[in-house]
Amino acid sequence: MAQQPIRVTVWSENVHERNNEKVRAIYPNGMHEVVAAGIRERLGEAVTVRTATLDQPEHGLTDAVLAETDVMTWWGHTAHDQVSDEVVEKVHQRVLAGMGLLVLHSGHYSKLFKKLMGTTCSLRWREGDDREVVWNVNPGHPIAAGLPEAVIIPRQEMYGEYFDIAPPDELVFVSSYSGGEVFRSGCCFRRGWGRIFYFGPGHETYPVYHQEEVQQIIANAVGWAAPVQAVRPRPYSADNAPSGWYERLGQAEA
Amino acid sequence: MAQQPIRVTVWSENVHERNNEKVRAIYPNGMHEVVAAGIRERLGEAVTVRTATLDQPEHGLTDAVLAETDVMTWWGHTAHDQVSDEVVEKVHQRVLAGMGLLVLHSGHYSKLFKKLMGTTCSLRWREGDDREVVWNVNPGHPIAAGLPEAVIIPRQEMYGEYFDIAPPDELVFVSSYSGGEVFRSGCCFRRGWGRIFYFGPGHETYPVYHQEEVQQIIANAVGWAAPVQAVRPRPYSADNAPSGWYERLGQAEA
Amino acid sequence: MAQQPIRVTVWSENVHERNNEKVRAIYPNGMHEVVAAGIRERLGEAVTVRTATLDQPEHGLTDAVLAETDVMTWWGHTAHDQVSDEVVEKVHQRVLAGMGLLVLHSGHYSKLFKKLMGTTCSLRWREGDDREVVWNVNPGHPIAAGLPEAVIIPRQEMYGEYFDIAPPDELVFVSSYSGGEVFRSGCCFRRGWGRIFYFGPGHETYPVYHQEEVQQIIANAVGWAAPVQAVRPRPYSADNAPSGWYERLGQAEA
Amino acid sequence: MAQQPIRVTVWSENVHERNNEKVRAIYPNGMHEVVAAGIRERLGEAVTVRTATLDQPEHGLTDAVLAETDVMTWWGHTAHDQVSDEVVEKVHQRVLAGMGLLVLHSGHYSKLFKKLMGTTCSLRWREGDDREVVWNVNPGHPIAAGLPEAVIIPRQEMYGEYFDIAPPDELVFVSSYSGGEVFRSGCCFRRGWGRIFYFGPGHETYPVYHQEEVQQIIANAVGWAAPVQAVRPRPYSADNAPSGWYERLGQAEA
Repeated sequence: MAQQPIRVTVWSENVHERNNEKVRAIYPNGMHEVVAAGIRERLGEAVTVRTATLDQPEHGLTDAVLAETDVMTWWGHTAHDQVSDEVVEKVHQRVLAGMGLLVLHSGHYSKLFKKLMGTTCSLRWREGDDREVVWNVNPGHPIAAGLPEAVIIPRQEMYGEYFDIAPPDELVFVSSYSGGEVFRSGCCFRRGWGRIFYFGPGHETYPVYHQEEVQQIIANAVGWAAPVQAVRPRPYSADNAPSGWYERLGQAEA
Repeated sequence: MAQQPIRVTVWSENVHERNNEKVRAIYPNGMHEVVAAGIRERLGEAVTVRTATLDQPEHGLTDAVLAETDVMTWWGHTAHDQVSDEVVEKVHQRVLAGMGLLVLHSGHYSKLFKKLMGTTCSLRWREGDDREVVWNVNPGHPIAAGLPEAVIIPRQEMYGEYFDIAPPDELVFVSSYSGGEVFRSGCCFRRGWGRIFYFGPGHETYPVYHQEEVQQIIANAVGWAAPVQAVRPRPYSADNAPSGWYERLGQAEA
Repeated sequence: MAQQPIRVTVWSENVHERNNEKVRAIYPNGMHEVVAAGIRERLGEAVTVRTATLDQPEHGLTDAVLAETDVMTWWGHTAHDQVSDEVVEKVHQRVLAGMGLLVLHSGHYSKLFKKLMGTTCSLRWREGDDREVVWNVNPGHPIAAGLPEAVIIPRQEMYGEYFDIAPPDELVFVSSYSGGEVFRSGCCFRRGWGRIFYFGPGHETYPVYHQEEVQQIIANAVGWAAPVQAVRPRPYSADNAPSGWYERLGQAEA
Repeated sequence: MAQQPIRVTVWSENVHERNNEKVRAIYPNGMHEVVAAGIRERLGEAVTVRTATLDQPEHGLTDAVLAETDVMTWWGHTAHDQVSDEVVEKVHQRVLAGMGLLVLHSGHYSKLFKKLMGTTCSLRWREGDDREVVWNVNPGHPIAAGLPEAVIIPRQEMYGEYFDIAPPDELVFVSSYSGGEVFRSGCCFRRGWGRIFYFGPGHETYPVYHQEEVQQIIANAVGWAAPVQAVRPRPYSADNAPSGWYERLGQAEA
């Protein structure tokens, strides 16, 4: 994959930005445009980035778009239920086939993330202008590259434990809040051929995705989640295995 | 939980045992009766064990039965599709609420296990009279207590990698087969308040559940998966958390 | 092990308690007596508990005492260097042979814990009367049994990330502090046949080990760390393995 | 690190190659030259590779060499005891400071690997011309990129479970042998700022390091273990942390 640019699709619900003046003031062109710009700026020629939103046909995630996506980012909140089951199924299959996925903030409660985790994905929350401090507990991890030991998000919705997810395969960030809560805010998972990163900060009423360090984390995560070889046409599905079947395997057939 | 017996429900499809003479010869009263007897014999007064099967109303898993189940074992194979989505949903919820679950052999492809894993749960397989050797790679684990370094299953269906599951939170057993394949055959997962153990051996045409060491592993796993406190009425679902909410928590409210 | 009481040895440096009036006021008979009493009170006939301290011959950890210890707790701080390498070596060997180990608070910087981790075990710290909130991030874990979602330690030394340990095999607690830091304060590890639990709270100038919930966590951890079968005479050391060696294994030889 | 070549040092004992004709026939210039050539060939301008051996002053691992090493590979067997404790200490420190480490085959029993693991690192073994099949159990992992589901090593020393290591943070390969044993043969660990990969195949009397797929795995692992930012001058060592210390952190100080 090193030579080819990573093809990124930034998906976002884009509802609050149109319905809520406060949010529109922060993200006049939608949150997805800020996320996309941050990835482009940091990864340059190593990526091509497009966006897609809920209101587009098939939510902008047609078969053609999916087939050209190596890494997807997902932000949703108020309209999780409006995402069609069919699209969720296709994106889930694409993750298992090798596509990287970044689930952002309230995306924790999307159909897609719940389907991947097998749990409720419930968590504690409070809109209360908490300060969030994102602590690095895995400083040698690629997603933490170039980041300080702690990143301060001046104002953010509180997302707290217990966060009902599958135990992360790797834990990268843990957050604290002014109110005293903690949260596993940077979590890595492997599912099928795909890699998933959940990142906590990003409430719509604060300019979180404009923040330098947040953009750096998302760009790092795109690099980490990029498939190590081309995404497969479909998820793994094993055949019956006659004796000695594997003796015919070669690198070309990998 | 120490004083109260662990309430175990052994669930089994019970189709091959009625349709296939070879299987009936090995399990004349159904596989579930052998599994249940093995648990009773080893854990004695520490458990009460009942069975339930596909052909019963609600597959034998009524609300009343679920409410009295601390640990469930699950064997299915040819009739995964006949298990109602509603029952699967209820059992899934009960696991997240704290019930232990043992998924046995071809149960890997059940709706229930796939829903808990978030992956395809596909694997390689071969009916070929392989000898399976179950190796202990976690000898201090409670599920391995009293077992030798290797348990030989004289004849068994081959189940081989790649096995498309979530990476296990703890890996206890890895199997080899005469044909040269390997398989992560003893895998622990935590989901919600519940604990799940997948165990590979158990093809219906071989007397695997009659084998001493297999019965010991299943009994150990029942002990390991038993909830550490009473199963909750429903899975975790967090409330909004006003400032200082947790200062009112006490042990009694746990 | 179910029938036999778990034999616990509570080891403590016992230096501050004699040199520092403030500490002596909290722990007049030494911190180890309070830790030991808490375990006895909660686990009753399921345990026998003795104590041992630095100033005793061989630090109270003679071969005879070690041979009768199933689980050890370790608290040290100012005198890590005074613990003899020979005793550390013996305790390390005993852990690998199956003895459970609870490393408490400043024990993180003991020779023993560093030897088990393979890392520096360095961490951030501040004596500043922070309030510590210990959050449960693994509510189905035996060490969390009976505990609320959050345990408040009214005053405690701050121990913060980055904490340079091996990634825990299971993470049970994460703490926050008034100052905004976080800490992986409840960490499980498996090494050899033994299980290790690190628990953060316990600064000598605050009455942490008198607190109910802390005593409950330590008692739970004793139960979790107890060996699943008798501690071996020495750590695992594999022999050369001629073809078919494992076919002679039986449960009796486990 | 993307722009700068990864500086690799291939360290090898180089004893068997000089003392044993059979080994010399396979590796006339030493095993390290074959390992080094394989990395150079696959990674090209992305790496610079040097070698170092036991018989050189300071085993070729002077302060200057260490300071210029981003990833080290380590092969030892008959002369583990001849490696000076001082050099082991320095390499251990360098790993914790961010240097990647590949431990190859019998390097499992080196002072260095045992120090990093905290365990005995003992395993079962047999020189018996077994065929080893290396199975990929983590197909989305960068170390598995471009590899088939199974790699066959036609003849290899058997290394079998139980392998007394810390549970791997990520498991990539599991091997089977003609004799029926299994082995966790591809294991990832994070320690301090550094990443470690253990890889099982590589007995000196077979041409394992000449094999294409083995060279690919080693090259992939060099890429995976490369530090995400410059290796630090020394391992993490945290300072006392006055209130608000982290508010002064910036990306530049990371």
